[in-house]
Amino acid sequence: MAKQSMTYAASGVDIDAGDKMVSMIRRHMTRTYGPRVIEQHGGFAGLFRLDYNEKLFARNYKDPVLVACTDGVGTKVKLAAEMGLYDTVGIDLVAMSVNDLIVGGAEPLFFLDYLAVNDLDPQQATDMVKGVSDGCVQAGCALLGGETAEMPDVYSKGEFDMAGFAVGVVEKGKVIDGSRVERGDIILGLSSSGIHSNGYSLVRAVVTKKKLKLDKVYDELEEDRPLGRVLLEPTRIYAKPILSVLNRYVRKRVVTAMAHITGGGLVGNLNRVLPKGADAKIERKAWTIPPVFRFLAKHGNIEQQEIDRVFNQGVGYCVVVKPAFAASVMGQLEDAGETVYWLGSIVKGTGKVKIV
Amino acid sequence: MAKQSMTYAASGVDIDAGDKMVSMIRRHMTRTYGPRVIEQHGGFAGLFRLDYNEKLFARNYKDPVLVACTDGVGTKVKLAAEMGLYDTVGIDLVAMSVNDLIVGGAEPLFFLDYLAVNDLDPQQATDMVKGVSDGCVQAGCALLGGETAEMPDVYSKGEFDMAGFAVGVVEKGKVIDGSRVERGDIILGLSSSGIHSNGYSLVRAVVTKKKLKLDKVYDELEEDRPLGRVLLEPTRIYAKPILSVLNRYVRKRVVTAMAHITGGGLVGNLNRVLPKGADAKIERKAWTIPPVFRFLAKHGNIEQQEIDRVFNQGVGYCVVVKPAFAASVMGQLEDAGETVYWLGSIVKGTGKVKIV
Repeated sequence: MAKQSMTYAASGVDIDAGDKMVSMIRRHMTRTYGPRVIEQHGGFAGLFRLDYNEKLFARNYKDPVLVACTDGVGTKVKLAAEMGLYDTVGIDLVAMSVNDLIVGGAEPLFFLDYLAVNDLDPQQATDMVKGVSDGCVQAGCALLGGETAEMPDVYSKGEFDMAGFAVGVVEKGKVIDGSRVERGDIILGLSSSGIHSNGYSLVRAVVTKKKLKLDKVYDELEEDRPLGRVLLEPTRIYAKPILSVLNRYVRKRVVTAMAHITGGGLVGNLNRVLPKGADAKIERKAWTIPPVFRFLAKHGNIEQQEIDRVFNQGVGYCVVVKPAFAASVMGQLEDAGETVYWLGSIVKGTGKVKIV
Repeated sequence: MAKQSMTYAASGVDIDAGDKMVSMIRRHMTRTYGPRVIEQHGGFAGLFRLDYNEKLFARNYKDPVLVACTDGVGTKVKLAAEMGLYDTVGIDLVAMSVNDLIVGGAEPLFFLDYLAVNDLDPQQATDMVKGVSDGCVQAGCALLGGETAEMPDVYSKGEFDMAGFAVGVVEKGKVIDGSRVERGDIILGLSSSGIHSNGYSLVRAVVTKKKLKLDKVYDELEEDRPLGRVLLEPTRIYAKPILSVLNRYVRKRVVTAMAHITGGGLVGNLNRVLPKGADAKIERKAWTIPPVFRFLAKHGNIEQQEIDRVFNQGVGYCVVVKPAFAASVMGQLEDAGETVYWLGSIVKGTGKVKIV
């Protein structure tokens, strides 16, 4: 009997399927390209020109600092896999890194994604990259590169994970780090689009344990979409409205701190940019908690303190602003399409966020 | 009966364990920092100063291009998990992206990692980051940030995945892209340290199907280490020797193309930087195939063509160099500690790599 010859394909990895997908995702990448992306045949890496000698760049940047972030979307990927919907979690992926990037005042330049799947289904992978590309368009950055890894033994059938990586630039003297926060500064909150990309292990535990149905429309959610679609709503990307505010007040520097509200909630994120002697005092009645959070709290019988620590509860991003400019910044963000809450103000304290 | 209140911890995610780990990994990050890293308390992102106005940077870069890469280490993570050895795959992770980055002539600046685990064991995660940190020191770049995601439902107990992101910089006029490759150029090969980080699904299939023992020392491997340790040998990082060659010949530009030999082998990677009318003609007897590849080919009964397409077979990186400088570059790489093979030369052809 002849020995059976072993091949890479038989061990679960298909190089040809990978090549096919590369050509399918190409247009999703090129639509995000500006003139600064340098295209290279067969390249090993993505190239992005800084245009240091161009007038616009030289005017804005005397001492440029590169800013970089990485993040995934947690077990929201699991929910997407369960529902077989692969074309929106890419937006979440971009949002998670880019919303972190702009916290320091950086302008997003480019993004790269890492997708890991059980089995390289070119359509599924293309859907994922389409989402990433949509997110990059929303954030105004180029999808400069990516990697799709086929790992049959690490991921189960239909399962996947994704990681994102964003790079931006900020002028050194204009880095926003909370050090200029003063008592009396106003805290504005930008509404989230839903649960965003944190707390999904708890969300899914509630769904499973309480036998909730992802395809059912629940009255308590106060909308026509079934629960699964509400839970999968992509994370809002705040890059464009925030950068427009920063660019408008480029000299006055009216924004003293910002925070992306992720795992840890308001109490565990806004505190990260507070100086030692200051508290953020936020009024619970200052904003409306969207139905989906009340729905999860009720069905999961989750305590308020736990809710505060895990979910954004309707506020996805905070801007701390000098009081004289708070109303103007609020108006500008609203004009850019944001729903903005006047959450509270900075008071004397010990670096904590207090929701009263 | 009181309803049981649901918490994030009970759903498998432990925020406190995450906080503990962050402090444990800190020293592995800071040892990679140079003066260009800007440290920020509680920051949402990593900051890296480009030093545009410093003399050294201004002398080297008139029109800087950022170069970015992302990659994982494939199912080598699965082998590491099976062996319970977590402190070397981080080196592979850095190698996979950084070796791609330098192909275009870029100097690595910083790196970020994404680790996804079933259960946040702070020691295990710290071991992983230690490996990444070791890799960054070898590559001469800063470990600027990272994310550790606890995803109990996506990864099985003890399983994990990792993705890496590297950013570098190259002067626009000095990008190496193969376009200057000419007939007669010499192809030098730098020895790999082993299988590197590609082909592990096939490696593991051979191990499982042929009931090979990871803890056994096989005579055919011609070394004292057991099979598992040989298979887990970290990927060689070529950044420092390659950059030293490029910096030495900064005006003469004697290097016309480079290739990182990953999945696809010599035939599927060196071809990516060949101009249309040129072939790379490589002599099979020009280099020594290390025992581990012969071992896998024999036990797996893998055909030569498949071997050529999947594994590096002992050559991890290629440098194409003008003939008059080939011996000198070879000597310089050897002085830097590399084992270098004179593989062959560029001949008239159609953009293919031919091993004869």
